[in-house]
Amino acid sequence: MRAAIFRHGEIVADTLPEPSPAAGQVLVKTLACGICGSDLHARKHAHRMVELSRHFPGRKPMDLTRDVVFGHEFCCEVLDYGPGTERKLKAGTRVCSLPALLTAEGPQGIGYSNDNVGGYAERMLLSEALLLEVPNGLAAEHAALTEPLAVGVHAVAKANVRGDEVPLVIGCGPVGLAVIAALKIKGLHPIIAADYSPARRSLAERFGADLVVDPARTEPYASWAEYAGMSAEEQAARPSWQAFRPALKPALIFECVGVPGLLQQVFEGAPRDARIVVVGVCMETDRSEPMLGIMKELNVQYVLGYTPEQFAFSLRLIAEGQVDAASLVTGSVGLDGVAQAFDDLASPEAHTKIIVEPWR
Amino acid sequence: MRAAIFRHGEIVADTLPEPSPAAGQVLVKTLACGICGSDLHARKHAHRMVELSRHFPGRKPMDLTRDVVFGHEFCCEVLDYGPGTERKLKAGTRVCSLPALLTAEGPQGIGYSNDNVGGYAERMLLSEALLLEVPNGLAAEHAALTEPLAVGVHAVAKANVRGDEVPLVIGCGPVGLAVIAALKIKGLHPIIAADYSPARRSLAERFGADLVVDPARTEPYASWAEYAGMSAEEQAARPSWQAFRPALKPALIFECVGVPGLLQQVFEGAPRDARIVVVGVCMETDRSEPMLGIMKELNVQYVLGYTPEQFAFSLRLIAEGQVDAASLVTGSVGLDGVAQAFDDLASPEAHTKIIVEPWR
Repeated sequence: MRAAIFRHGEIVADTLPEPSPAAGQVLVKTLACGICGSDLHARKHAHRMVELSRHFPGRKPMDLTRDVVFGHEFCCEVLDYGPGTERKLKAGTRVCSLPALLTAEGPQGIGYSNDNVGGYAERMLLSEALLLEVPNGLAAEHAALTEPLAVGVHAVAKANVRGDEVPLVIGCGPVGLAVIAALKIKGLHPIIAADYSPARRSLAERFGADLVVDPARTEPYASWAEYAGMSAEEQAARPSWQAFRPALKPALIFECVGVPGLLQQVFEGAPRDARIVVVGVCMETDRSEPMLGIMKELNVQYVLGYTPEQFAFSLRLIAEGQVDAASLVTGSVGLDGVAQAFDDLASPEAHTKIIVEPWR
Repeated sequence: MRAAIFRHGEIVADTLPEPSPAAGQVLVKTLACGICGSDLHARKHAHRMVELSRHFPGRKPMDLTRDVVFGHEFCCEVLDYGPGTERKLKAGTRVCSLPALLTAEGPQGIGYSNDNVGGYAERMLLSEALLLEVPNGLAAEHAALTEPLAVGVHAVAKANVRGDEVPLVIGCGPVGLAVIAALKIKGLHPIIAADYSPARRSLAERFGADLVVDPARTEPYASWAEYAGMSAEEQAARPSWQAFRPALKPALIFECVGVPGLLQQVFEGAPRDARIVVVGVCMETDRSEPMLGIMKELNVQYVLGYTPEQFAFSLRLIAEGQVDAASLVTGSVGLDGVAQAFDDLASPEAHTKIIVEPWR
């Protein structure tokens, strides 16, 4: 079968052996697979990923001398079953799955593995127990957006929202947009969002942001403060010794960029007692001033992934039209176009999400 | 009056003009004032403190060309009152106060200020509204430990303890010991604590640690894991997809050292989903691997100070003998001995807390 393969630091289209489903596994045809920012990071920082995996004894690190097929945001079609399967979904059924294979040694990742081919391939293997049937009529390229939406749903869940916070979303790429969508579903508003790109700001509004800010022109934290004033009741409920502090509601800041220096910027801009959820994936060493965190008593919650329940919930949100997934998709390519698509995604004006269609 | 003054980067004993109480203020005689690790940091990193204060428009930065008198852990005796005071406590009454003066512009710090003399001086000014009478019979040098104990009480309060966590305290200096004391009061155990110093480990046991670890011989996180196994009920209550994760109770790690690189060490050692409370005050730029935080979904809560209620609670804990404050005090000096005491505190074997007695 054909695949777009990560080989010696580059993405190349080539052929691979056909996968064969083992016990509990399903052979599927990949209908659509989104290109994730993490894949771009991984192409650039694969050695860092391998180095970091030494901290996680359960995870088998990638062997970068061997082929890897990325792709963990996929929608597929059932082709055939391995032994010991229940076969409840007939061949041709469209399915999603979170990107993991269940094995006797525990779940193993799909997409950053030498063993488990990701979605940039014509066919792949999934675990029957993790399959979610795609509701009738939902396009494969939209069902494939379940995974990035689940990242936002999980980030908002990990924020332990009480209801009185005013959220600020820094960065409106697919991750930031998923966070905005999840905040809107949660009913938390006003939602303030910031991005340098006009196209991204426009999408942020469509996804539910009440105010979008261009950081080149307006300080996002100042705009946030304009929307975060306490009510008279909230002010009256404060302890007397807080009377000299600015009367602002709690800040809930989502860092959805993931580059070095960004967290320090958030530390500088954040108001006192802010909770910061780090959703952007920064694979490089970062620097920060802990004294800023200390003097402001900041809280930083790092997040990754989602639960199976959050993944299934996200698919339902898209299928029910509660999240306008279609507006994220700005392009699609076959396997020969993946390398170029990686380059094209560097421009936020041109693209948000490019879908790989390996069957093309 | 005489004082130990921070002048051009050094601590020197010299005379200063006598302070005069303004409206709402009280002139007090300093009976005892603890030397805090932050004072040692401040002597070394005063320019950093000034630089960081640009992020806090409400705070008046120190002018390092002018004199500063450190000292924010004090117990005093009422001498005289300024205008507009109620004078409920008669002259000679022993009092504590959190280190702040209430002014029309809001609270201003005592101890890192050109205007407000700290406790390394014969006399100082306090705000009447913040005075707490020291319960009868409590020695001044023990009442002066209210402030560092309040730091631990506050840190534990900010940790939002649910009751099922197993705490690990990294560093058993005065801050770590205060955290251990506050954890014991909270009833959370077993308490695991780590310090390279035998003297500090012995104090940690006295303050309530159930297991103390020498990191030179034993990996603190491995010792923690031995104590943190889930019960059968807790294991059964986990979602099925967590079955392959180690069956460990939630980790609550208190970083009580405050030097660059320490947080990264905690990131490396911490188990998945750990909550980390940063109580140690690191005034330098720090580096860390955000990917470790992300992959483990760590939570970092930076903390500073305490509320007035926590401060008063801490004084009661000491007065009622619930915290063995006396065992913290390893020496006392007059104003001429402060500079030497700063140097002596570099050795954790020799000293935990040195009390300045400016009247000597």
